[in-house]
Amino acid sequence: MTDKATYDYEFLRTSFPVPSVLHIELNRAPLNAFHEPFWRELGACVDKASTDPDVRAIVLSSVQRIFTAGLDIKAATEILSPSSSDPAARALHLRTHILDFQHAISSLSRTPKPIIAALHSTTIGLGIDIASACDIRLCSSDFSGCVKEVDIGLAADIGSLQRLPYIVGSDSWVREICFTARPFGAEEALQQGFVSRVFLGKEECVRAAIELATKVGEKSPVAVQGTKHLLNWGRGKTVEEGLEYTAVWNAGMLQSGDIGRAVKATLMKNKAIFPKL
Amino acid sequence: MTDKATYDYEFLRTSFPVPSVLHIELNRAPLNAFHEPFWRELGACVDKASTDPDVRAIVLSSVQRIFTAGLDIKAATEILSPSSSDPAARALHLRTHILDFQHAISSLSRTPKPIIAALHSTTIGLGIDIASACDIRLCSSDFSGCVKEVDIGLAADIGSLQRLPYIVGSDSWVREICFTARPFGAEEALQQGFVSRVFLGKEECVRAAIELATKVGEKSPVAVQGTKHLLNWGRGKTVEEGLEYTAVWNAGMLQSGDIGRAVKATLMKNKAIFPKL
Amino acid sequence: MTDKATYDYEFLRTSFPVPSVLHIELNRAPLNAFHEPFWRELGACVDKASTDPDVRAIVLSSVQRIFTAGLDIKAATEILSPSSSDPAARALHLRTHILDFQHAISSLSRTPKPIIAALHSTTIGLGIDIASACDIRLCSSDFSGCVKEVDIGLAADIGSLQRLPYIVGSDSWVREICFTARPFGAEEALQQGFVSRVFLGKEECVRAAIELATKVGEKSPVAVQGTKHLLNWGRGKTVEEGLEYTAVWNAGMLQSGDIGRAVKATLMKNKAIFPKL
Amino acid sequence: MTDKATYDYEFLRTSFPVPSVLHIELNRAPLNAFHEPFWRELGACVDKASTDPDVRAIVLSSVQRIFTAGLDIKAATEILSPSSSDPAARALHLRTHILDFQHAISSLSRTPKPIIAALHSTTIGLGIDIASACDIRLCSSDFSGCVKEVDIGLAADIGSLQRLPYIVGSDSWVREICFTARPFGAEEALQQGFVSRVFLGKEECVRAAIELATKVGEKSPVAVQGTKHLLNWGRGKTVEEGLEYTAVWNAGMLQSGDIGRAVKATLMKNKAIFPKL
Amino acid sequence: MTDKATYDYEFLRTSFPVPSVLHIELNRAPLNAFHEPFWRELGACVDKASTDPDVRAIVLSSVQRIFTAGLDIKAATEILSPSSSDPAARALHLRTHILDFQHAISSLSRTPKPIIAALHSTTIGLGIDIASACDIRLCSSDFSGCVKEVDIGLAADIGSLQRLPYIVGSDSWVREICFTARPFGAEEALQQGFVSRVFLGKEECVRAAIELATKVGEKSPVAVQGTKHLLNWGRGKTVEEGLEYTAVWNAGMLQSGDIGRAVKATLMKNKAIFPKL
Amino acid sequence: MTDKATYDYEFLRTSFPVPSVLHIELNRAPLNAFHEPFWRELGACVDKASTDPDVRAIVLSSVQRIFTAGLDIKAATEILSPSSSDPAARALHLRTHILDFQHAISSLSRTPKPIIAALHSTTIGLGIDIASACDIRLCSSDFSGCVKEVDIGLAADIGSLQRLPYIVGSDSWVREICFTARPFGAEEALQQGFVSRVFLGKEECVRAAIELATKVGEKSPVAVQGTKHLLNWGRGKTVEEGLEYTAVWNAGMLQSGDIGRAVKATLMKNKAIFPKL
Repeated sequence: MTDKATYDYEFLRTSFPVPSVLHIELNRAPLNAFHEPFWRELGACVDKASTDPDVRAIVLSSVQRIFTAGLDIKAATEILSPSSSDPAARALHLRTHILDFQHAISSLSRTPKPIIAALHSTTIGLGIDIASACDIRLCSSDFSGCVKEVDIGLAADIGSLQRLPYIVGSDSWVREICFTARPFGAEEALQQGFVSRVFLGKEECVRAAIELATKVGEKSPVAVQGTKHLLNWGRGKTVEEGLEYTAVWNAGMLQSGDIGRAVKATLMKNKAIFPKL
Repeated sequence: MTDKATYDYEFLRTSFPVPSVLHIELNRAPLNAFHEPFWRELGACVDKASTDPDVRAIVLSSVQRIFTAGLDIKAATEILSPSSSDPAARALHLRTHILDFQHAISSLSRTPKPIIAALHSTTIGLGIDIASACDIRLCSSDFSGCVKEVDIGLAADIGSLQRLPYIVGSDSWVREICFTARPFGAEEALQQGFVSRVFLGKEECVRAAIELATKVGEKSPVAVQGTKHLLNWGRGKTVEEGLEYTAVWNAGMLQSGDIGRAVKATLMKNKAIFPKL
Repeated sequence: MTDKATYDYEFLRTSFPVPSVLHIELNRAPLNAFHEPFWRELGACVDKASTDPDVRAIVLSSVQRIFTAGLDIKAATEILSPSSSDPAARALHLRTHILDFQHAISSLSRTPKPIIAALHSTTIGLGIDIASACDIRLCSSDFSGCVKEVDIGLAADIGSLQRLPYIVGSDSWVREICFTARPFGAEEALQQGFVSRVFLGKEECVRAAIELATKVGEKSPVAVQGTKHLLNWGRGKTVEEGLEYTAVWNAGMLQSGDIGRAVKATLMKNKAIFPKL
Repeated sequence: MTDKATYDYEFLRTSFPVPSVLHIELNRAPLNAFHEPFWRELGACVDKASTDPDVRAIVLSSVQRIFTAGLDIKAATEILSPSSSDPAARALHLRTHILDFQHAISSLSRTPKPIIAALHSTTIGLGIDIASACDIRLCSSDFSGCVKEVDIGLAADIGSLQRLPYIVGSDSWVREICFTARPFGAEEALQQGFVSRVFLGKEECVRAAIELATKVGEKSPVAVQGTKHLLNWGRGKTVEEGLEYTAVWNAGMLQSGDIGRAVKATLMKNKAIFPKL
Repeated sequence: MTDKATYDYEFLRTSFPVPSVLHIELNRAPLNAFHEPFWRELGACVDKASTDPDVRAIVLSSVQRIFTAGLDIKAATEILSPSSSDPAARALHLRTHILDFQHAISSLSRTPKPIIAALHSTTIGLGIDIASACDIRLCSSDFSGCVKEVDIGLAADIGSLQRLPYIVGSDSWVREICFTARPFGAEEALQQGFVSRVFLGKEECVRAAIELATKVGEKSPVAVQGTKHLLNWGRGKTVEEGLEYTAVWNAGMLQSGDIGRAVKATLMKNKAIFPKL
Repeated sequence: MTDKATYDYEFLRTSFPVPSVLHIELNRAPLNAFHEPFWRELGACVDKASTDPDVRAIVLSSVQRIFTAGLDIKAATEILSPSSSDPAARALHLRTHILDFQHAISSLSRTPKPIIAALHSTTIGLGIDIASACDIRLCSSDFSGCVKEVDIGLAADIGSLQRLPYIVGSDSWVREICFTARPFGAEEALQQGFVSRVFLGKEECVRAAIELATKVGEKSPVAVQGTKHLLNWGRGKTVEEGLEYTAVWNAGMLQSGDIGRAVKATLMKNKAIFPKL
């Protein structure tokens, strides 16, 4: 773990705008349409960052004109073309394929590092799955989201339907956008709580995301990663189960030297420096 | 399944404003107060539509002056009058009665067809249970909702308390309206996410609901019904359970010819026509 | 149960502004910093009120300049100082301590009596845990909330992370305030649904809370307590589990004389008087 | 509820060997092969008994030479023949069919009345699903069970795989008989706990089942039905959830006059007579 | 924690046959019938032992002629006598009473210390609830168990119905003994797995229980208490949830010095001495 | 998928005694003590077999004198040596390590292919975790099992505590062997249901396992793999959840050509030949 991990990918541009923040930019011209190599790269990149002590927070944005046009329909069609003449065999192969695909995108939720999506322009289909799996969503004023799947004849299966009810409040709105595939803009996304802030343009949005990630990266990683883990774990659990699990988790975590560092810095009115995990 | 199903009811007016949309209007003068025959009819009607391939979406509204005054108190009192002198026997009878009642109203949530409530004017007690069991809620500006049950000495037991936390974001607001039975208007309903849109009057609201239903009815039924089913199934489950279940569901559904139809239409810039289920 | 329970505490000021409403005011000068005796008192006071038939609703506010500065860091540091040189033994002791602490604060959620938090000024760390465990949150316009825990190097473990996702809609916002410990004001709290109403100053807010509590206290306790219990029980459960449980609950509760009282009063246009539980 | 319910079926012979015990005998010559009308009748008969206060316990046996050869393969093949050329549409139709079939067989578990299976001779495929859904299993020494489904190319889907792990202890044995479809005899069934007692011949087994049912039928129905309900409810739940639910259940049931009757009879050394529910 | 805790009770005889083993003997002449003060004492005693570092294992037996005749019917009748004329109010009071009662008996399961029941002679009703809440059950050959509750008109509500399915394999047997209240002897208890060993007489059984407790008490308390906790936690959870929780638990526990002590002793062929927790 | 997969490992001997059965033999002299490379190989081998259509069933046995001495204590000690001076950082690293270790061993449960453990001689610690994750357990008469973990100061965390309650019936026995680490022999293992059959010697046991695997391998893979998947999925779920999930699963699987093959073969009294998946 002494050498810096390297992040070289064909469809992702990566950088460290500050030492603790990994910036991942979707980068498959022209529209970031996702074929299998692309989403496998995204999963692999995030999984690598998960165990890289140098990365304390992640920003996800797009280097292309739009955030993403979603699934690469042509590529997907090949996946869906019958692998076998037996519908049951096909079903089992499709199930394995879907689980793999979900696993790659769920890397965003699974990584212990906070991940902030900076969305802009068209963000449809898989783009909403991806955004929903991030922790925090910011967008620029030209953002236009769309749960597009019904328009290509299927129920969204890579996370939108599973996560939207956990990330926005109004179920009536969720169903409206999921049943109709109608686009929704930045203002609506903000009002419904899909994003927590809107910025004028993409640059401003990405800059704000990096600032936010930087700020988060300066906190104790024990505290931040625990916070993310506990928020994720609590979904679909009772409050009592959440509290009980948290007590076991913090039984170990409260022994961290970070608490002493934080308290001391607070008393001294200094900024605490927290070691890598 | 070759003949058209018929929808004749005493307390419901039904129609097909477009061939794929069943419009159900509550119709028990003067105030749509619900006695047992009325809610049994509602359940039976929705259950019939569930297996009717001609119905692709449902709109629920009221033909009376208000949406509903809720439970018919006089009729309910008879149900509550002691069926036995033994409190345990009475409890068992009451439990069976409540389960039956819940089963009828839950038809709205259970049906695979999307169902849009067009609410107007007074909508109290059971009206909120009913609206909460629908997928999408629209209302007119004269809407006035009320979780009335505490005012008649009971905790709401036909779905409001179970579904409100899943359909709006602010628990503080939910408890305020449930503990106090205070009415809330269209604007508040919109702001809290109880409804997703507000319209000037009842006619406009119903028209918008039918338009929305029509639009939804033009999508692939495999996609739309899967979307509703997966959103419902995910409640109270973890995201991981939701994803795993979705993968099994879509292992079958992705073999649908609708996907080819949708993709082809998209490429051709046509409108796809999807067969009935 | 014939004598009035007494509520004498060192760090709580208690009163009955109306006979059915217990007003608990946090009262440890200067900033309501919580050390163990303080949070134990709070838990004990609420637990006592839980079985006191004279108490029908509770208001929680602060008598000090701010709502609370959260945990008394100095006192907490002693708790966290190694109780043993063995990390496993320390973990087991810490776990027991956390469970005790959670148990005290969860009294607010556990009590069958509705409890309304009237928040004002600075409300940080444990203050958010406490507010989140109440049923309804009101605040004055000078309110400033903060999930402060990451700033002292830990993940919040007394309820904020477990309850915030159940009480507000936007997960993006929840994570933003939990990862960054940035303060949020009254307007933001209202918009996100953390509070359901904002008042000009603390006095007005407390007065409104007492009025609300009074109103709730006039309803049938069978109905109100059942409503709270069923809303709490439903969290992390499926809708079907919630309905099934509710049917058993109300099988007993619908035998209450309160229903007759309520119906009769409604017909007579009187105000029903409901006996204590 | 004043008239006796009648139990007339084409494929079931029914009788009341004692007034409180309904004896249902499977009766489709020659081998009780189940086609849809047969299993629908079984479900309908048990559902009727569920609400018939005259029935306090049920015995299920076979009037034919064997208990059952399971599914009527020829009839089932028709069900499985493609209802549509679209695999997704077929999947949705098959799912509805399976749910219906499960619902009929689950009537045995769902009915509040204890149900005792008296098994004899060949009992394969659906026979194990049926037996597993009963409360108590007795068999004669010529019993030969078989989880036959893998031999016809499918995973058992009407309850065997869901209930066997809850009704016998050794998972290694369950998987052995489910993966291989090898028959197991009375002695093995007893040793593994699938049945709780073995009798010499069918007559003796049925007689014992009726005696047992009679004995159960003499107990308080409030107590017996509560016991069955709570045992069923607890499956897949934590002990704490089970206790909490039980407390709500018995809060109503302990008000039964049956307890006084039982206590009085015990003190008097009489046999208590409990009213119908 | 420097002084020895004292264990003085009216209805319990306590002793330390070896320094690490607390022996609790039920002691209310003549038949250990349980009234409220008795079960409250049992709960209080076990709760005290839970936090007493001197206690590493517990043996529970009876000093009377039988293990227990169960609930003191006369005392219980008073509890059940109407506390209010309102069935709903009574239900709420009964629910609180049942939860209290369950809480006391669940102390046996809740305590982190392993607890071994040495059963002898008649053990009925509450006796089975109590035995089921212990970790290990041994009995003498004169043991006679009985789930007596249906005979007094109620479904067992203090743990038997919730725990029996988790502690024995054959559900058919569980339902047979719960529906009929028929007694079962030592041999049957052993065969069904209710007890894990049978001894000739009570003295031998108690001696074996103490030997077993002594042996368990010599192991690392971190290991033993973790083992009990994880076995309890896993009930009603998926294997995956169990593994995930265990990983968090052991993340702290594997830092224990006990592991080094154990490994060193193993290599040295010594007996390791583990410090108190 | 056209070429045969190869199974070359340093610590595993693999072979195909019949074309469809993969035989994995643990092979690290002298005692199959598990260090990290060994358990990683086991996981990798089973994961490879999971997607290898040539493998229809797996047998796991040991080529060494005993089945396994469990964890390689010396190697494990290095893992446990402090990776950081911070107990919280160490806890997070240990958690990751445990999750990895669990993931490798859970491959046995996760693989859709049935896996039969042929146990012989000493099988301790990790050996029980491994055996418990298999589907079927057979053993030779010299088998001696031991849940050894408490003897090295820890609670078993690789599956024994999570799976034993699901695979044997008597919880009293499970706790006895887990709290005391006492060995249990073949007869006891059979009586408690830990194994489903005992054979004279290792050779006979392995031969029987291969015969059983061969038999299972001749069945429809759609049927067998579905059976395993549904049995695993059902653990910790309610029967209703299990049935609902099964209906979705079989909605796809009942479209398999294997059913026609099986039915035809049955009618023809032939042996059906099922294609690979």
